[in-house]
Amino acid sequence: MHDLLVKEALIVTCNQTHSIIENAVMAIRKGKIEVLCHAQCDIAKTLKAKKTISAKGKMVLPGLINMHCHAGDSLFRGLVENLPLEEWLKRVWIAEKAILTPHTTYLGSVLGFAENLLSGVTCVMDMFWYPHEAVRAAQLLGMRVSTGGLFFDFSGIGERSHKKYIEEAKEFSQRFSGSADVFPVVMPHGTYTVGPEHLKDAKSIADADNGLFCTHAAETKAEQADILNRYGHTVIRHMDTHDLLGKRTVLAHCVHVDDGEIDLMAKSGTTVVHNPMSNLKLASGIAPTTQMQKAGVRLTLGTDGAISGNDLDMWLAMRLASSLAKGVAMEPAALPAKDVLHMATLHGAQALGQEKTLGSLEIGKQADFIFLDVNTAHAVPLFDPITHCVFGAGRSDVSDVFVAGSQVVKDRTLTRHVLSKTLTEVKSLMPSIQNSLNEA
Amino acid sequence: MHDLLVKEALIVTCNQTHSIIENAVMAIRKGKIEVLCHAQCDIAKTLKAKKTISAKGKMVLPGLINMHCHAGDSLFRGLVENLPLEEWLKRVWIAEKAILTPHTTYLGSVLGFAENLLSGVTCVMDMFWYPHEAVRAAQLLGMRVSTGGLFFDFSGIGERSHKKYIEEAKEFSQRFSGSADVFPVVMPHGTYTVGPEHLKDAKSIADADNGLFCTHAAETKAEQADILNRYGHTVIRHMDTHDLLGKRTVLAHCVHVDDGEIDLMAKSGTTVVHNPMSNLKLASGIAPTTQMQKAGVRLTLGTDGAISGNDLDMWLAMRLASSLAKGVAMEPAALPAKDVLHMATLHGAQALGQEKTLGSLEIGKQADFIFLDVNTAHAVPLFDPITHCVFGAGRSDVSDVFVAGSQVVKDRTLTRHVLSKTLTEVKSLMPSIQNSLNEA
Repeated sequence: MHDLLVKEALIVTCNQTHSIIENAVMAIRKGKIEVLCHAQCDIAKTLKAKKTISAKGKMVLPGLINMHCHAGDSLFRGLVENLPLEEWLKRVWIAEKAILTPHTTYLGSVLGFAENLLSGVTCVMDMFWYPHEAVRAAQLLGMRVSTGGLFFDFSGIGERSHKKYIEEAKEFSQRFSGSADVFPVVMPHGTYTVGPEHLKDAKSIADADNGLFCTHAAETKAEQADILNRYGHTVIRHMDTHDLLGKRTVLAHCVHVDDGEIDLMAKSGTTVVHNPMSNLKLASGIAPTTQMQKAGVRLTLGTDGAISGNDLDMWLAMRLASSLAKGVAMEPAALPAKDVLHMATLHGAQALGQEKTLGSLEIGKQADFIFLDVNTAHAVPLFDPITHCVFGAGRSDVSDVFVAGSQVVKDRTLTRHVLSKTLTEVKSLMPSIQNSLNEA
Repeated sequence: MHDLLVKEALIVTCNQTHSIIENAVMAIRKGKIEVLCHAQCDIAKTLKAKKTISAKGKMVLPGLINMHCHAGDSLFRGLVENLPLEEWLKRVWIAEKAILTPHTTYLGSVLGFAENLLSGVTCVMDMFWYPHEAVRAAQLLGMRVSTGGLFFDFSGIGERSHKKYIEEAKEFSQRFSGSADVFPVVMPHGTYTVGPEHLKDAKSIADADNGLFCTHAAETKAEQADILNRYGHTVIRHMDTHDLLGKRTVLAHCVHVDDGEIDLMAKSGTTVVHNPMSNLKLASGIAPTTQMQKAGVRLTLGTDGAISGNDLDMWLAMRLASSLAKGVAMEPAALPAKDVLHMATLHGAQALGQEKTLGSLEIGKQADFIFLDVNTAHAVPLFDPITHCVFGAGRSDVSDVFVAGSQVVKDRTLTRHVLSKTLTEVKSLMPSIQNSLNEA
């Protein structure tokens, strides 16, 4: 007896070979996929389950993996506009400093993760203050999260010393090491805000527990010039010099990287998170995804925070990733839909070291999957499912979301939390948020 | 007694000065806005209407104007992928030739216009075969359309001679001249598919009835090279030489135009339709919107057909227009949200010569308006309504649509047509569409 049986599904597996199974059945026990085959296969006829769901008229995909987010920053969505990254950050930090407490961080994280989950994202790599609050928020909604201690060379929110940053990152990494739904990562902000000795401290904490290391890198031209001026190397070379690249390193952005830096990332197995919406809107530029792909860099996809974006939409990120690669190079075959869909699924799982459990719908993997409504004016006719995922589908098409076989979104509504409570509380905080900048 | 009263509305008027009215009332009689003011104004207290609707929790905007579409091509959505414009067109034309009849054109037009209307577009400039079928489809759903006779130098669908093209364009223009919901436009396909004498024939038909003239222009580098080679001038200069520019001329794309061409368009009052999604995906390039804006060219926005896009999403077009202008130039203040919102509303009305009746919510104008749900995880907090329209909102946020005060979409559902009938019929046509390419 299985726990859940999904029938009549058009399954886009996102496995290595991009298999698509029409009229598929998927049987789940203890959160894992035990059977996945065409309805006509022998085993399909004998399946029994406590609950059976029809996916007729829906496409079924693995849950998306958003590899770069600052969910708590959703509190400040649309507050600071039309500025370049550096000036923008100064304004953002004033608002953050005035508003963020463990409680408001939890509130913002629930808001940001709810937006992710409702749009079909089942796992988020999130960089923010108070990572335990992000974990609480993710667990409330029923999703997976990769997060951990921040590092800055200044005291930031909560007036932290470097010693305190180290303690918090260690405690977090040790606590969640080996967890199935919280993947610890040590998160220094960037090479321009954290000096090399502190970056190495952060990396050694990550390495001690076989954990991940993530930072912002090469987001703007100004950042590249700053690091070259300070250290005599460009950002990625600077990181390489200090042994910060590697298979468990995740670099957000990499908009301005040269061929040598791309080679360093490819050879070391470093993961890049492409955040096209944020990079465009903050006028950082357009990342050389095609060149990175050709060099063999593992490319993943993220939304960045809603304060730059201004939302957390992985479908938009997918559409932009492929379209920008084609449009900028004037090369219509660049970064095709199937590669972009992998960036948002299987490659994310690989970057997290979770490729045996997440990122595709395959027997033995966790049953993290979503239903996509394809009986709409913008989805018919549907000649190729993968093209539709990247160039036609949108967040509102996601009707149902399951994590480890448990339904966390049903008919476009969270099952474990009443969203309106969060929206009401965020609205009540708006005057304080607005005033935080006026008073500065 | 008014016909309709909208209360508790957050109205983004899209008028010249971008006025926003919180807690507004809007009273409508015979399809026009007669009262528009804050709920506390004197007249608001005396209003009576046959029907009153609360817009609480919604933002109210004028209906969007999609200035470039090929609605009937929605039949071929996703059929031809990863090719540059010229090769792509050859494949598209094979499928069109095999499939298009007046009936299938009507079917595709209903599909494409339904997608537009459900996403908040109340008026579309549509270029396609059998323009009377487009009119029938638009009228079925209750929306406005600008369309008219095509011109090609070859016979195209229906084996038309040049004489036949002329007859059809004349008949259409004369029939709808002065109409309030069908705005006639003569539509030669492009300078690379229609020679100058035939272009001038088309223009003279438009001029005879004070109508519009629209063509594809300067979409690709290859097109520019072709026209320069054939005629000794680049595309916009070639058009200027033949007196084809002017206040009633609408040029779709203009991706590859130099400063001189931009000046010619600005001085002549020519309208440009920016189609960022299509231009990226077909790898045509990125139009110089900021330069055109600075020169004083009237910029409007379009989706192009779903066969290039792959959907008809004006919210995506708005987001891309602003983001691309910022990201490509690395200039965060480029093409801000308010300018882009005008491209999708008031500028479209100006291009159609309908600025006294459409494009903004103002007293005396037609009551074409939409409700946008802003009580969602991706809309809260909402500090600036116009920023939200361009950088946060999406097609699925449009809950209700009114044209001339009549409700044509209610709770995300068409009121005058059962969409599922159209979807079913399109699905039944899919094998023939697929085969049309296989047999070629």
